[in-house]
Amino acid sequence: MQLGATSITIVSVIALVAVAALVMAAVLRRQVLAAGEGTASMQQIAQAVQEGASAYLRRQYRTLAVFAAVVCALLFLLPGDGGVRLGRSLFFLVGAGFSAAIGFLGMWLATRANVRVAAAASLPGGRAEGARIAFRTGGVVGMSVVGLGLLGAAAVVLLYGTQAPAVLEGFGFGAALLAMFMRVGGGIFTKAADVGADLVGKVEQGIPEDDPRNAATIADNVGDNVGDCAGMAADLFESYAVTLVAALILGRAAFGEQGMVFPLIVTTMGALVAALGVVITRVRGAESGLTAINRGFYVSALVGVLLASAAAYAYLPGTFAALTPGTAGLETHDGDPRLVASAAVLIGVVLAGVILWVTGYFTGTTSKPTLHVARTTLTGPATVVLSGIGVGFESAVYTAGIIAAAICGVFLVAGGSVPLALFLVALAGCGLLTTVGVIVAMDTFGPVSDNAQGIAEMSGDVTPEGAQILTDLDAVGNTTKAVTKGIAIATAVLAATALFGSYADAVAHTLRDVGEGVGDGLTAAMMSYDIISPVTLVGVILGGATVFLFSGLAIDAVTRAAGAIVFEVRRQFREHPGIMTGEVRPEYGRVVDICTRDSLRELATPGLLAAFAPIAVGFGLGVGPLAGFLAGAIGTGVLMAVFLANAGGAWDNAKKIVEDGHHGGKGSPAHAAAVIGDTVGDPFKDTAGPAINPLIKVMNLVSLLIAPAVVVISVGDDANHTARLAIALVATAIAFGAVVASRLRAARVDREGRLEHEAPELVR
Amino acid sequence: MQLGATSITIVSVIALVAVAALVMAAVLRRQVLAAGEGTASMQQIAQAVQEGASAYLRRQYRTLAVFAAVVCALLFLLPGDGGVRLGRSLFFLVGAGFSAAIGFLGMWLATRANVRVAAAASLPGGRAEGARIAFRTGGVVGMSVVGLGLLGAAAVVLLYGTQAPAVLEGFGFGAALLAMFMRVGGGIFTKAADVGADLVGKVEQGIPEDDPRNAATIADNVGDNVGDCAGMAADLFESYAVTLVAALILGRAAFGEQGMVFPLIVTTMGALVAALGVVITRVRGAESGLTAINRGFYVSALVGVLLASAAAYAYLPGTFAALTPGTAGLETHDGDPRLVASAAVLIGVVLAGVILWVTGYFTGTTSKPTLHVARTTLTGPATVVLSGIGVGFESAVYTAGIIAAAICGVFLVAGGSVPLALFLVALAGCGLLTTVGVIVAMDTFGPVSDNAQGIAEMSGDVTPEGAQILTDLDAVGNTTKAVTKGIAIATAVLAATALFGSYADAVAHTLRDVGEGVGDGLTAAMMSYDIISPVTLVGVILGGATVFLFSGLAIDAVTRAAGAIVFEVRRQFREHPGIMTGEVRPEYGRVVDICTRDSLRELATPGLLAAFAPIAVGFGLGVGPLAGFLAGAIGTGVLMAVFLANAGGAWDNAKKIVEDGHHGGKGSPAHAAAVIGDTVGDPFKDTAGPAINPLIKVMNLVSLLIAPAVVVISVGDDANHTARLAIALVATAIAFGAVVASRLRAARVDREGRLEHEAPELVR
Repeated sequence: MQLGATSITIVSVIALVAVAALVMAAVLRRQVLAAGEGTASMQQIAQAVQEGASAYLRRQYRTLAVFAAVVCALLFLLPGDGGVRLGRSLFFLVGAGFSAAIGFLGMWLATRANVRVAAAASLPGGRAEGARIAFRTGGVVGMSVVGLGLLGAAAVVLLYGTQAPAVLEGFGFGAALLAMFMRVGGGIFTKAADVGADLVGKVEQGIPEDDPRNAATIADNVGDNVGDCAGMAADLFESYAVTLVAALILGRAAFGEQGMVFPLIVTTMGALVAALGVVITRVRGAESGLTAINRGFYVSALVGVLLASAAAYAYLPGTFAALTPGTAGLETHDGDPRLVASAAVLIGVVLAGVILWVTGYFTGTTSKPTLHVARTTLTGPATVVLSGIGVGFESAVYTAGIIAAAICGVFLVAGGSVPLALFLVALAGCGLLTTVGVIVAMDTFGPVSDNAQGIAEMSGDVTPEGAQILTDLDAVGNTTKAVTKGIAIATAVLAATALFGSYADAVAHTLRDVGEGVGDGLTAAMMSYDIISPVTLVGVILGGATVFLFSGLAIDAVTRAAGAIVFEVRRQFREHPGIMTGEVRPEYGRVVDICTRDSLRELATPGLLAAFAPIAVGFGLGVGPLAGFLAGAIGTGVLMAVFLANAGGAWDNAKKIVEDGHHGGKGSPAHAAAVIGDTVGDPFKDTAGPAINPLIKVMNLVSLLIAPAVVVISVGDDANHTARLAIALVATAIAFGAVVASRLRAARVDREGRLEHEAPELVR
Repeated sequence: MQLGATSITIVSVIALVAVAALVMAAVLRRQVLAAGEGTASMQQIAQAVQEGASAYLRRQYRTLAVFAAVVCALLFLLPGDGGVRLGRSLFFLVGAGFSAAIGFLGMWLATRANVRVAAAASLPGGRAEGARIAFRTGGVVGMSVVGLGLLGAAAVVLLYGTQAPAVLEGFGFGAALLAMFMRVGGGIFTKAADVGADLVGKVEQGIPEDDPRNAATIADNVGDNVGDCAGMAADLFESYAVTLVAALILGRAAFGEQGMVFPLIVTTMGALVAALGVVITRVRGAESGLTAINRGFYVSALVGVLLASAAAYAYLPGTFAALTPGTAGLETHDGDPRLVASAAVLIGVVLAGVILWVTGYFTGTTSKPTLHVARTTLTGPATVVLSGIGVGFESAVYTAGIIAAAICGVFLVAGGSVPLALFLVALAGCGLLTTVGVIVAMDTFGPVSDNAQGIAEMSGDVTPEGAQILTDLDAVGNTTKAVTKGIAIATAVLAATALFGSYADAVAHTLRDVGEGVGDGLTAAMMSYDIISPVTLVGVILGGATVFLFSGLAIDAVTRAAGAIVFEVRRQFREHPGIMTGEVRPEYGRVVDICTRDSLRELATPGLLAAFAPIAVGFGLGVGPLAGFLAGAIGTGVLMAVFLANAGGAWDNAKKIVEDGHHGGKGSPAHAAAVIGDTVGDPFKDTAGPAINPLIKVMNLVSLLIAPAVVVISVGDDANHTARLAIALVATAIAFGAVVASRLRAARVDREGRLEHEAPELVR
């Protein structure tokens, strides 16, 4: 139950390192806030963005708090030891709370950093100073992610000893569930505002992006902060927490107590690396921001591998027999634990590097695929859409193949032992995440500099040199955003693959506890992990289908919400002709309100689907098909996530290529075609795509949590198939009911004929 | 080895029924050719189409003959009994030959029927007579599919007795491989011509579709015949053959000799139903063509179920113990074989009916989803593309869910016995295919009436009433095409699910033959079907990735080939100004040549990928991950196929809604947006989507065929891992090399800067 004295000492030191990381975040935050806030006009705009973003997140958290309370109660009802169940429910709330806090912090600071970056860009030495502020903002978020993740995990281990894994499931689940809702809600908000603003502003009225006459501009800037900042920060925290949780659970099975402590040590090295990365990464002279990023990344990666290997050799013994005994019976395994653990971490870090490179290749403005997409703008929008889809499909295949190769590599290192391989997969995930501090820091660049550019444009208080600096900073942000998505989905695959091991463990334990075999006939089929069983295959199909449905719902939600923005902005232009001449200030707040209302309404459907689909499959078909469901969701999920992210990224940068003067430049038919491609890509890359990462983890953790209950209810003499089917039907009804409700809402919008009514000039 | 006397008598009668079906096809063919051929101008156009289509198919077959010979030789090299290997290689050629023959026949007759339909439409009673000719043409193809499929299977059973299953694998593989190439090649041809013709004709020059001044019109009409007619006919033949093969293989395991004969009996009932369907289906008075189709379908389905059930009760005994013994040990199974077999057939038929309904709902011109897509034309092309993708994702989920529900239903009927369930899944597939005669007949409506309309337009020799009749016939064809794709993908899932059983059987048999266990460590992992093993999960990811890559390659090929057509048509307009005034006849032949050349060049990459990816995974990772690969391919494949087909169908019909005068009608901005959506959908629904069905079967059959070799090479003391990895590397190199070659070709096209060179006016 209780850990050994050495372990307690080490984990206590780790907790102190976590606190130190949070202190460093506080110091960096103070540095950011100390910078100049710019002109009164800039401050006024920034304040509107701050208020809108803050109001949205508060309302979102209020809505989610009810949901979290219900889930917390349901968690407590699942079978298991009372103390563990209580701890799991409580740490579910802690995980959710940390996720929410990181999101809020990211948004809060970004909405204050943006105006400071805009102000700094116009001063002498603006390039370096602007980059420094934007990067420090990211550093705060990065150190907070690392600090809170490590602190939570260390606390659970100290409090619950060897029972920590069960409690950690709750912690990870809370983090993932909140992050998924924040990704979906924030993603809908940001892209509804963006698409709506573009459709009326750029396309219909021919005014530039971020023009203050467009009523949707403030909402667009708010969206960047609640989606790209808050959503992304919560998402990366969730990746961090869930990977750590998976590693601890599987570590206990493979390496015993030492297996629970070692992943924490690796992650602590990651915290040191993150601190190093934040300190060393800076733009030197006139070099491209991307060069600085790559340097920061590769230095961090190298140091991370060295530190983790050193820790392995210092902490782990040289043979498996000398390890504290785990439950997987690896005592007789041939090989050196120090070597295999170091190799797994190395594979994870190399995987991060390769993904960085591949994502850059497929979405960078100077690489062949994007140049190809840019060239197809010459034959019109249809060919742009088709070529972007082709690039997206292809890049998804390569990314998935690379992740698959990494798993195979880990498997070889494990010598074919499945329990060891599962732990090593989780360790590879920890290795991947040693670079997360730098990744978060660089990622936050994007929305902060994007916002800075918006504020500069709207206020008009920026020098031409300052504007150019902000444009350059923004372009760097685009590439880092795509890379972060690739890294995030890779952690999802590794964590989910590893969690499969805990899932099988949970099922086996429960079977032993209830003292039953799996029997034969239907019950045996319900318990079979055999992929050749037709119902397991049904599970695979349904898992893939859930990813398709989730993506479709998220995209539809953006299309619908953007429609509402289009009507509102058109209405303001029509009713107040003074807006166009600059005499009347548009009602920015109304657009923010519509975005807030629609995002909160729309996030429920995909969220409920993700939470209840595994329950329906598990209770309806059994734990075997549920495993198939997870495999289908992981396989289709990684492909879909990368496809959506990279197709969107390629369209975005193809548009930039055209805007840089190629193929006719701004205002040409090619540009119009490129803008259409970019608009199609908006909900792909910023709403549906990034939400798939937390989706996969939520579905995995829900499955892991319900597995014992499914086993208890479906085997033995007491098997209560009526109750089982009733639960499955209720879950199906909730998930499917949410989809139907969303359809009915869409049908009502169509039926009201708002388009014909509000835009009669379009309906000739 | 040899079958019992009763079985021989029954199978001989079945062979005679198959011959009778072919005789009926010949009679119908004569009736079609007896109709009037129209004016000299019509005949001239029709002849150009005939020559182009015939030349393309001949060249395609010459190319594929080499490939087929190589595969035939490789097949013979696989381990196994000599006689069976020879038979399998020979029947591989027979299957491929039948597939090619059906395709050629479909194309040959369709290119003759089109002009006759065009001619008939202008005569009194034109509506009924035009529909009759188009429908009879489909009847010829339908009866040929049924006749040749049944004849091939019956011949193998008569010749090889209980060894028939191994030989049938070759027959099914030949049919599937040829069909896949024809789907890909024909699909690229038809959509390159269609997209190319539209981009220059409709969009740039503003001339109507099928205008004789457009040099790509003949190629467009040729494409309809080599893609929609020849490709579709081969595809349905392949579905028929592979489903039958799966049923016979699994039938032997489950029901012994009677299990091999019974699926043939069910399919014979299907032949009778098809004959009935061809006779009874006709358009009555002014009713919609769709009403006639639905009536024909539902009557056929009902009669099919009744006949199949009657056959079950007449042929099968009342208990499992009374059956001829199979290898699956079901003698003690509780239940009535007659009842479970009838129930499986019923589930298959009901599945066909539900898919018919769902596809109609998502793509019909009067249903909500399509009306919604049509409405989004008001906010521009980006929202049209997004809403179509949303509809596609959603419809894919429902279709996949329905197929999954059917499999679960079959599983319940089987009482959870996996071997019985697998056979019943195959029987459900046979049930689904009792309606295939009517489906093929109705499907051929589409391209024949589309072509008839084209010929009428180009010749100018048709009355206004005749033109309206042809337009109506064409619209009916659009819906039946989408339905056929849904049915085809459902058969793919059922056949593939069932073939999983044969796969596991083949592995188990080989293990028994080599007298080895699976050992432990890496070898055990290579043999494990456990979905929770990381390498099996890697298989799932790679299976899904192959579907994504295949789809992306097919779409890219169309984009590239269409680009070449655009340049050629533009060149002709530029160099011969007389074309636009109607004084000079465009060089139609050159466009046909370019389409032929490009399609043949482009079909190699996806084809090689499909054939070699399972070899790479199987030899590289083992039979367990290969099973995961197939599961991933099936799960992702069914979703992707339906997504592509239905998104394309919805865009197509949304365009028709706008063209019917809604949202501004022809020439409005909404129409321009709808045309863009339709163009995006063209390669979705007619190239990539339909090719996924044969893709899944090809990959399944390749896996089934190589499974014994993989087992032999990877277990026991003689395990030769170097040879195994060498084979995997060669297969990877071929599949990946094809992709790289295709990329290099694309890069060269881009580098040559053909667009800037040939279309300087676009590059301002």
